[in-house]
Amino acid sequence: MKNTFGSAVSLTIFGESHGPAVGAVLDGLAAGLPVDGAAIAAALEGRRARGDGLSTARKEPDEVEFLSGVKNGHTTGTPLTLLLRNTDTRGGDYQKTAALLRPGHADYTALAKYEGWQDAAGGGHFSGRLTAPAVAAGAVCEGVLAALGIRVYTHIARCAGVDDAPLDPLCESLPALTPGHFALIDADREAPMQAAIRAAAAEGDSVGGILETAVTGLPAGIGEPWFDSVESELAHLMFAIPACKGIEFGAGFGFAGLRGSAANDPFVLRDGRIATAANRNGGVNGGITNGMPVVFRTVLKPTPSIYKEQSTVDYAAMRPATLQIKGRHDPCIVPRAAAVQTALTAFGLLDLLTVRYGTLAQKHGLPGK
Amino acid sequence: MKNTFGSAVSLTIFGESHGPAVGAVLDGLAAGLPVDGAAIAAALEGRRARGDGLSTARKEPDEVEFLSGVKNGHTTGTPLTLLLRNTDTRGGDYQKTAALLRPGHADYTALAKYEGWQDAAGGGHFSGRLTAPAVAAGAVCEGVLAALGIRVYTHIARCAGVDDAPLDPLCESLPALTPGHFALIDADREAPMQAAIRAAAAEGDSVGGILETAVTGLPAGIGEPWFDSVESELAHLMFAIPACKGIEFGAGFGFAGLRGSAANDPFVLRDGRIATAANRNGGVNGGITNGMPVVFRTVLKPTPSIYKEQSTVDYAAMRPATLQIKGRHDPCIVPRAAAVQTALTAFGLLDLLTVRYGTLAQKHGLPGK
Amino acid sequence: MKNTFGSAVSLTIFGESHGPAVGAVLDGLAAGLPVDGAAIAAALEGRRARGDGLSTARKEPDEVEFLSGVKNGHTTGTPLTLLLRNTDTRGGDYQKTAALLRPGHADYTALAKYEGWQDAAGGGHFSGRLTAPAVAAGAVCEGVLAALGIRVYTHIARCAGVDDAPLDPLCESLPALTPGHFALIDADREAPMQAAIRAAAAEGDSVGGILETAVTGLPAGIGEPWFDSVESELAHLMFAIPACKGIEFGAGFGFAGLRGSAANDPFVLRDGRIATAANRNGGVNGGITNGMPVVFRTVLKPTPSIYKEQSTVDYAAMRPATLQIKGRHDPCIVPRAAAVQTALTAFGLLDLLTVRYGTLAQKHGLPGK
Amino acid sequence: MKNTFGSAVSLTIFGESHGPAVGAVLDGLAAGLPVDGAAIAAALEGRRARGDGLSTARKEPDEVEFLSGVKNGHTTGTPLTLLLRNTDTRGGDYQKTAALLRPGHADYTALAKYEGWQDAAGGGHFSGRLTAPAVAAGAVCEGVLAALGIRVYTHIARCAGVDDAPLDPLCESLPALTPGHFALIDADREAPMQAAIRAAAAEGDSVGGILETAVTGLPAGIGEPWFDSVESELAHLMFAIPACKGIEFGAGFGFAGLRGSAANDPFVLRDGRIATAANRNGGVNGGITNGMPVVFRTVLKPTPSIYKEQSTVDYAAMRPATLQIKGRHDPCIVPRAAAVQTALTAFGLLDLLTVRYGTLAQKHGLPGK
Repeated sequence: MKNTFGSAVSLTIFGESHGPAVGAVLDGLAAGLPVDGAAIAAALEGRRARGDGLSTARKEPDEVEFLSGVKNGHTTGTPLTLLLRNTDTRGGDYQKTAALLRPGHADYTALAKYEGWQDAAGGGHFSGRLTAPAVAAGAVCEGVLAALGIRVYTHIARCAGVDDAPLDPLCESLPALTPGHFALIDADREAPMQAAIRAAAAEGDSVGGILETAVTGLPAGIGEPWFDSVESELAHLMFAIPACKGIEFGAGFGFAGLRGSAANDPFVLRDGRIATAANRNGGVNGGITNGMPVVFRTVLKPTPSIYKEQSTVDYAAMRPATLQIKGRHDPCIVPRAAAVQTALTAFGLLDLLTVRYGTLAQKHGLPGK
Repeated sequence: MKNTFGSAVSLTIFGESHGPAVGAVLDGLAAGLPVDGAAIAAALEGRRARGDGLSTARKEPDEVEFLSGVKNGHTTGTPLTLLLRNTDTRGGDYQKTAALLRPGHADYTALAKYEGWQDAAGGGHFSGRLTAPAVAAGAVCEGVLAALGIRVYTHIARCAGVDDAPLDPLCESLPALTPGHFALIDADREAPMQAAIRAAAAEGDSVGGILETAVTGLPAGIGEPWFDSVESELAHLMFAIPACKGIEFGAGFGFAGLRGSAANDPFVLRDGRIATAANRNGGVNGGITNGMPVVFRTVLKPTPSIYKEQSTVDYAAMRPATLQIKGRHDPCIVPRAAAVQTALTAFGLLDLLTVRYGTLAQKHGLPGK
Repeated sequence: MKNTFGSAVSLTIFGESHGPAVGAVLDGLAAGLPVDGAAIAAALEGRRARGDGLSTARKEPDEVEFLSGVKNGHTTGTPLTLLLRNTDTRGGDYQKTAALLRPGHADYTALAKYEGWQDAAGGGHFSGRLTAPAVAAGAVCEGVLAALGIRVYTHIARCAGVDDAPLDPLCESLPALTPGHFALIDADREAPMQAAIRAAAAEGDSVGGILETAVTGLPAGIGEPWFDSVESELAHLMFAIPACKGIEFGAGFGFAGLRGSAANDPFVLRDGRIATAANRNGGVNGGITNGMPVVFRTVLKPTPSIYKEQSTVDYAAMRPATLQIKGRHDPCIVPRAAAVQTALTAFGLLDLLTVRYGTLAQKHGLPGK
Repeated sequence: MKNTFGSAVSLTIFGESHGPAVGAVLDGLAAGLPVDGAAIAAALEGRRARGDGLSTARKEPDEVEFLSGVKNGHTTGTPLTLLLRNTDTRGGDYQKTAALLRPGHADYTALAKYEGWQDAAGGGHFSGRLTAPAVAAGAVCEGVLAALGIRVYTHIARCAGVDDAPLDPLCESLPALTPGHFALIDADREAPMQAAIRAAAAEGDSVGGILETAVTGLPAGIGEPWFDSVESELAHLMFAIPACKGIEFGAGFGFAGLRGSAANDPFVLRDGRIATAANRNGGVNGGITNGMPVVFRTVLKPTPSIYKEQSTVDYAAMRPATLQIKGRHDPCIVPRAAAVQTALTAFGLLDLLTVRYGTLAQKHGLPGK
């Protein structure tokens, strides 16, 4: 389904970086759900570029226009379509080097796939700009989850070599995240993290990092044993984030060094309910939520647009070439991507919840919870 | 779609560990493709249990019965259905401890999801037994890919703390893997790996590991920018493998420690074609194949069935309990899972190829390649 | 998805007429739903061939083997797979005339699509034999609907030129249907209907007819405005019935001769609830159920296998030829197809109900109903 | 998938009659396909309202704005999104009678489904206005088909009791259709048809009719035996047309009165290729195209908005009421719907072609044709 994903709730993403607009269609919502403009704006603010040396100077207004599916601040139950107009599109910056393939970018793969017909300006359909409508749509889903007692929490676990304080995998306390651009558990990590990013930027280079998400309040029993496991659904969505190159749940790659006796989460009774003493499985057993927080991490590669000179190929002339990228580019997209990860997580879990409980439950609540 | 996945080619998995049979329906194949029984048997042999102290003593005949879609050794173009009968099903081993939730297993999540109606014997629908039909179906896909010049290669990158020799991410040479149960680049690693597994087993414990897959011969241009990225499709499938808890492409989580200048793969001309000098992006840029080998790693957690005493809950009595698992269980499923990873990879890539080139191309070849 | 259909509940059909078995996978059922073997057998009895001059003499045992998803007479919540073995397969009858394309059959289209690799014996994957697993799977769905107060009722509206008594579109009374092979409102129509079929058969010819289905007890609000309208879902399914060439809802093609004032169904209050005075819209407005019975009719073409000599083409020699079909063939499949129509209707509506109310509602009931 | 349909090519429809815009996302197109603005405008002109007493006086500008997927007059290969702004939206006309359920409309079913949260103005998401983006998207598909030698031809077979000249089901000649609003084979039928519509309108009433479509130039082998039959795909789409209540292929309901000997289409050799002497099966056998023209008819019910007084229910007061509809409404939408039927047919067949031949074939042609 290419640019559409989801079973009971579906999300379609469209647009190009320098086209008239980017947007999303969110279908499968119940009618009468609140659509909170302020919450959407806050989510978009999370992924907004700052022009502060840490993220691109592009001025994106990020005003959301609802084309359908919303009336009087509530969903109508029909497809919710939202647009963000592109206003600050300096195509010229890109065209000069159009025949030089930028390493790490989708220039060559787009060329191969679209046989030269793609809209290349600003990354076109591959641009991180398309995460903006995903964030807006996800913020609607996040609001629905919140009303059902479900919270999605994403922090920057590591960026530019600097770690945040660790997340408690049981989420017995989830401290308020640092306000502003850097979603951190420990506010004191922001300064060294920023410094490390600026150091890379000063050398014309870029850095990557790790985002960690915890979802609390999910009932046990969501997801499926095989192809629609919670991990499959979330991984499918996270790999739509342009820079994402890996995902792990719970102890993740650490499981390779654990024995079963240290990897299993013993069952316990907590407040009269079945729980686990640890949460190394990240809230998922056999593809299905076990009522513990769903915890996962993704890795985002360094921004491929760097100012250092790079070797590449001029595909028009089919000869080696040297590339010097200009224009405005984030030295690090990890802080901005936290909002995207939260949004797509909210969407994916709302989809899985709806499979089990039906569309109406989005509004009327989950029975037995 | 729960137990069915795929766009142009789809795979449905069904069955329970101790039911009459497990099976698969593979739909969307062209007609006239060879179905090589020997190749299927060889793939199944890869995931077969040995009863050698390294894997469970259960004797699975693994004879594939084709119910539909195959005639005279070739596909008919209609759904290919295959069965593997379950013969050695000692349900009694499991029933004794039925009300004690096994940590790390799907016992509790199945209980929550199916409200007690699941077929619990031997793991039921969650059993690794269901990977057998997936392997058989994937072997058919692997044969189709092979005829198109595409090869799927999976080795045990790490198991029980022992590493294999590293894979060359450019795959300029892909050494023959160690024959037998342990798919290794370096045959000398087998003995220490086996020893480490036996050591854990001797303590009633289990171990996990990392599987690495490389796919060579793929044309550039497969996959989609957003939700149907190559990474999304493969991750979706790999997380259907019961023990899989993480996946990474190319440099994967290592990207968090790299700068862009070290993460980007410079483009070069090789044999008159566009290629990259390194392959840190694992053959995928912007979700689309770039013609380099697709390389990824998954982590498999240690088998949750261990013989050590574990704390758990008796859900019938809703009180704490101590569990002592009996029966036959693999101390490590990593070697057996290599065949599953290969099979699901072959299936997923055949699906993506078919989206681009159509069903007929499975038989008649990829134009321009 | 080719041989799989459905959103929240999915049905996969596989098999060939003269292969080892035909079968179905029904996925998306809640756990704990009763699977009533007697009801399945009764449904299959409805589509069974009699060898009485009205339907083919082929002896089909129609014993259903459950491979997965059923335990202790209830669904487990995992894919329900059922098989019917093929035992009476006389391939020889068909092979003699293999290069002569049978008019009205899928011989030529299968040849074009599968390039000669299809399993042609007995119609292969195109055989009406494949409706048997659909009937069995549908009977499970019908049982689920019945427990929710929803009834699917199909009668032979017209066959071989003989009409049944008309169905009351308000379904204020739904008389018991004639027992046995001919599902009729008026038992007195059976004798002339049989006589007309036999008259055609005596001339080596065949006849078609019209099946009419009414579904009572559906809540208002099922279905979607555009592509997943109730009409779209049911039509999609009915056109899977091999002989179906048309479908109409409510007044159907009669609407072309009505004015709006005669076509609209006035709203009334009945028993304190909103209803309509007439039911010319067949229970569906804007693609969504309105709480009135869903009523539709399909037309089934005459069996293409006739004993009269026919002009055709020998595709091997590419020259005109004369065909004389032998073997055993129904002169009319309309009575047998009633069970298929009921089954696919039950499946389709269970799917749409599940989209709205969730999987759990299949077992726990529809809130507010 | 609710408002999205298609396997290899997908179409999403969104918007409300009196919201800011209606639109469509068309995904799965190859890159480099021409997007002919004039052809799109011509298709939209076909469904445009005239304000001539035959169709509503609403002035719809029908200017298509491309938001994504088109550059330099060609597709980019990424989702093609198009908008039509709503400008002439007099919500007031509708609000006065908001609590009176209009018979034959979706007022009540929307109320039941959306629990009162729907956008009711002008029919909201149910409005025929949403067919405009479907027509625009379909016109793009029609252009792709035309370049492959495939033509979609729709005429008004019957309207207001007046028949057009019959279509030759072999399509040996397809006469140019009457220019303007009434797509007729025989231009002389337009005057009596218009007169009959005006006569109904003069009485405050409305009429329906039958649209017939023929598609020529399709290769044999498109479609699938069971759930994705050509008939299933096209019927699914046609029932998305708001007024459609029936569809029949080839001889359709006429098959109920035919014997097999008269229903079968004998195979013949024509120009050295296999063809059929007649085309009573409407170009489809066993769900798959046979290379003959695909021919089908739909019935469209009379416009439910009539000016005659009607009995209904005031759902707010839950009491019987009398309704007098005001505003502007077509007395007949059949002529305008011809463009919609053509558009959705073109989309559906492009989807099925792409399943078989792949995305690239949309641009590079069908091998072997």
